[in-house]
Amino acid sequence: MEQLDMIYEGKAKKVYATDDANVVIVDYKDDATAFNGLKKGTIVGKGAINNRMSNFLMKKLEEAGIPTHLISEIDTNKTYVKKVDIIPLEVIIRNKAAGSFSKRLGIQEGTPLKCSTLEFSYKDDELGDPLINDYMAIAIGAATKEEIDTISKYAFQINDYLKAFFKEIGIELIDFKLEFGKTSDGTIVLADEISPDTCRYWDIETGEHLDKDRFRRDLGDPEGAYKEVFKRLGFGE
Amino acid sequence: MEQLDMIYEGKAKKVYATDDANVVIVDYKDDATAFNGLKKGTIVGKGAINNRMSNFLMKKLEEAGIPTHLISEIDTNKTYVKKVDIIPLEVIIRNKAAGSFSKRLGIQEGTPLKCSTLEFSYKDDELGDPLINDYMAIAIGAATKEEIDTISKYAFQINDYLKAFFKEIGIELIDFKLEFGKTSDGTIVLADEISPDTCRYWDIETGEHLDKDRFRRDLGDPEGAYKEVFKRLGFGE
Repeated sequence: MEQLDMIYEGKAKKVYATDDANVVIVDYKDDATAFNGLKKGTIVGKGAINNRMSNFLMKKLEEAGIPTHLISEIDTNKTYVKKVDIIPLEVIIRNKAAGSFSKRLGIQEGTPLKCSTLEFSYKDDELGDPLINDYMAIAIGAATKEEIDTISKYAFQINDYLKAFFKEIGIELIDFKLEFGKTSDGTIVLADEISPDTCRYWDIETGEHLDKDRFRRDLGDPEGAYKEVFKRLGFGE
Repeated sequence: MEQLDMIYEGKAKKVYATDDANVVIVDYKDDATAFNGLKKGTIVGKGAINNRMSNFLMKKLEEAGIPTHLISEIDTNKTYVKKVDIIPLEVIIRNKAAGSFSKRLGIQEGTPLKCSTLEFSYKDDELGDPLINDYMAIAIGAATKEEIDTISKYAFQINDYLKAFFKEIGIELIDFKLEFGKTSDGTIVLADEISPDTCRYWDIETGEHLDKDRFRRDLGDPEGAYKEVFKRLGFGE
């Protein structure tokens, strides 16, 4: 497939059209942003790691029965994915309190929860991606009841799979953000990425942050953290 | 029953113990607050109106099958109610966009919604009563799944009843806030109040605000608005 014009540039990725209307190319960047774009920087090597890590995990999830946008990896930073209309909801699953959950509820990071939680943030940078619930999402037409049921079911299945998977390599999956999209035939698939940009990974032994919080919070050596997770997934240096 | 010590003073009500451990007295004040207590004032006559209006509506809801905390009215400002442990969730039902919903989602007040919505705010003044969802409420132990299901069912039933009831007297019920509590035998009942302090009432003909927004937003004559709703409910001057 031939790469055509860039059709979208986000904070961490560029998207290009191809000569197949149902296929686009995602190109992962080293750019890092936090706090809705207020903090900007670069994590050298991040684009390649996120591309390959995300593809690796999506392939595993496909095998586990979750439909994803993944078609095939092109090179270190680029991948063919199904063209989708993104459902404008960030889907956040949490296994322990951290980040905005801790802040909102005055609960210390790392506090266990009585159950894993699912949250929707309405994807709107101007509004600051506000937390909404399922009734609100339906009320404003962001998604239908059926879409929300499907997304929620997949999100918890993905959590079960990833939590167990990361535990095997000494990483506790604290929380993560997913995005879903609809293909041209209306199928809902997992889109976006699964990477240290979108997950909180804590080392099970040391509690060390192996994710974008190293950049967000100036904890030092974000490159090393991304590489460490990548290595534990079985990828060489 | 004898009135004993005051056991709680809130923004708009005082609560007194009685010689029956399962009964308390609620005493409605004229004090008005908004924006989590930042704005303070007085709406003369509000206490008496809210007491009698709330009792009137709770009696109607009891007849419609919704359990409430109401026992019996004592006088203009005081009522015997069942002693409950309040479930720490404000339950907000909306029929049109207004207030914090409009602000959060950038949607003009009065915009119709594709469905009525239910929201939970976690009752914590220091945290600013943040919006949470059902998963979050369960995860932090604010309520159980069963309690949330019961509360949600009652809240939508109350909405159906009140919406139709207020329509008959020329008022559109835009949104309202409910609180629920558990009696000593574990029954979940509607508690708190239903009044222009806790509901958005808009005149169907003119769109005029007949509720606490007249105080919150300095629209003038809040006393007149409270009296107007009271009058339409069949109470004299």
